[in-house]
Amino acid sequence: MKGLWLENNELQLRTDIPIPEPPPGEALVRVLRAGICNTDLELKKGYYPYTGILGHEFVGVVEQGPEHLLNRRVVGEINAVCGKCRFCLSGQPTHCENRTVLGIVNRHGAFAEYLCLPVVNLHPVPDHVPTEVATFTEPLAAALEIQQQVSLGKNDRVLVVGDGKLGQLVAQTLALTGCELLVVGRHQDKLANLEARGIKTGLAEAVTDRAYDISVECTGNPEGFAIARRALRARGTLVLKSTYADNLNIDVSSLVVDEITLIGSRCGPFPAALELLATGKVDVQPLIHAHYPLTEGLVAFEHAQQRGVLKVLLEIS
Amino acid sequence: MKGLWLENNELQLRTDIPIPEPPPGEALVRVLRAGICNTDLELKKGYYPYTGILGHEFVGVVEQGPEHLLNRRVVGEINAVCGKCRFCLSGQPTHCENRTVLGIVNRHGAFAEYLCLPVVNLHPVPDHVPTEVATFTEPLAAALEIQQQVSLGKNDRVLVVGDGKLGQLVAQTLALTGCELLVVGRHQDKLANLEARGIKTGLAEAVTDRAYDISVECTGNPEGFAIARRALRARGTLVLKSTYADNLNIDVSSLVVDEITLIGSRCGPFPAALELLATGKVDVQPLIHAHYPLTEGLVAFEHAQQRGVLKVLLEIS
Ligand SMILES: [Zn+2]
Ligand SMILES: [Zn+2]
Repeated sequence: MKGLWLENNELQLRTDIPIPEPPPGEALVRVLRAGICNTDLELKKGYYPYTGILGHEFVGVVEQGPEHLLNRRVVGEINAVCGKCRFCLSGQPTHCENRTVLGIVNRHGAFAEYLCLPVVNLHPVPDHVPTEVATFTEPLAAALEIQQQVSLGKNDRVLVVGDGKLGQLVAQTLALTGCELLVVGRHQDKLANLEARGIKTGLAEAVTDRAYDISVECTGNPEGFAIARRALRARGTLVLKSTYADNLNIDVSSLVVDEITLIGSRCGPFPAALELLATGKVDVQPLIHAHYPLTEGLVAFEHAQQRGVLKVLLEIS
Repeated sequence: MKGLWLENNELQLRTDIPIPEPPPGEALVRVLRAGICNTDLELKKGYYPYTGILGHEFVGVVEQGPEHLLNRRVVGEINAVCGKCRFCLSGQPTHCENRTVLGIVNRHGAFAEYLCLPVVNLHPVPDHVPTEVATFTEPLAAALEIQQQVSLGKNDRVLVVGDGKLGQLVAQTLALTGCELLVVGRHQDKLANLEARGIKTGLAEAVTDRAYDISVECTGNPEGFAIARRALRARGTLVLKSTYADNLNIDVSSLVVDEITLIGSRCGPFPAALELLATGKVDVQPLIHAHYPLTEGLVAFEHAQQRGVLKVLLEIS
């Protein structure tokens, strides 16, 4: 089969990859559509060691698997877990100590004609949700993880730093909580997406220092972190939603004096994300900037890396 | 009056300081005993700008003030607050936006014959608690702040990094929660203090990676932070109890992947600290390494800065 293969920081379109055979408990999924994520770009840059097929945001059709899923469109949770370790046994499978992660850690990903995932990872996509919309399930679930970690209410002043793919989804999900929200970014057109949904936006200069209860860093760069930090009142919470190319240089003493909480946030709940897509409470259509066939995957990656580009989708079958 | 005055990073014994006159709402306190804290050493090194009398851990006698406190021994909360800002009004006075802080921010401190503090800051010392013991109220309250911020139970595996003044108090207070506790440090004699109280101790090598639910950083150095970080399981909590001379270089991406929480922790509850001292549940006597008269304050500071030295007390009147 065809697939985008990463090896030694080089991405190549391969056509000679064998179609995988699902081990017991796993399903064979024919991939329909997949989204390129910042993590994919970072893996390509070599930030993390990985060899194999990239990709973890996808919609596919089950070709081998249990009856209730056969021939259905599905999305899939990306962590394949052992079910036996302390994290699995304590209801925290995304932190399984023995996990493989689709297209990220020791498991071939979704930028190929077929993939395998454990049956328990798969969630059927409601019939009326378009395939391209459902490809956002995984990043939308990640955005929802914030609300699993931090309690948010109408009286909370919340700042989202970053208007990119992640910032857009985070902002839309946070807006649903009714909190007092500001999103800051660098791109007028992307901020306009949010303004059109009634979300207040601005440039970094719009951020009042020490005024926010919660800030969410969605840029992955040190400047974004600095804005998210200075925006917080004493005892505020900074949610870290991005990864970074390098370590950050942090004034930890000021975190102590202000009793700031920093909290890392990763994968979230798929059912809640599918529900938001099914009910249209989150609108991902404006985030889709381009479609490419899998065979033009390398061009798609070039496009996705350009400044200001939101989601680039691969049409696979 | 006599006092230890800091100016341009130079500490001097002055004898010409006027006795302060308490403004409305404040009491005049004759200082009996005061403790030298790491913050004092850091102020002396110029980490924070401050000019005036140093010192914030003290026991004194009220010479001018309300009847119920007059001639009584008192300890004092160090943040003098406005009572009107959003933090004061929301029950978080230690974060008052207009606060002065005894011997730290815009308010003369305790290394002098007299000090002034708002009457509301003062707490009478129970008669049977020795004065030198009560000088530990402020740092002990700071140790107790951890339990205000993080819920701790018998099933929690907790690591304290650091066997210094702060680590000793933090360890003793955490041990009272019944959690599964390990304290690591570099000094056999200091660890022996804790072992004598039934607390498990070891060197850094004793720390199993990714094994602890909560770690508390009490060293103020980057090596201590690294130990506290690597000790944590996924979704663990790192409590920052120290300040640092410089910014720290932190792998923030790993905090995201492991969904770690970092939380800064500063001043805590005086009444609970006094209670622990009054009931003898925390033993501070082994932490007292030296006593000096105020007139030998500069020598006392030299002593307090030496590696391995715990609390140095100043006997003032
Ligand atoms: Zn597991
Ligand atoms: Zn105030």
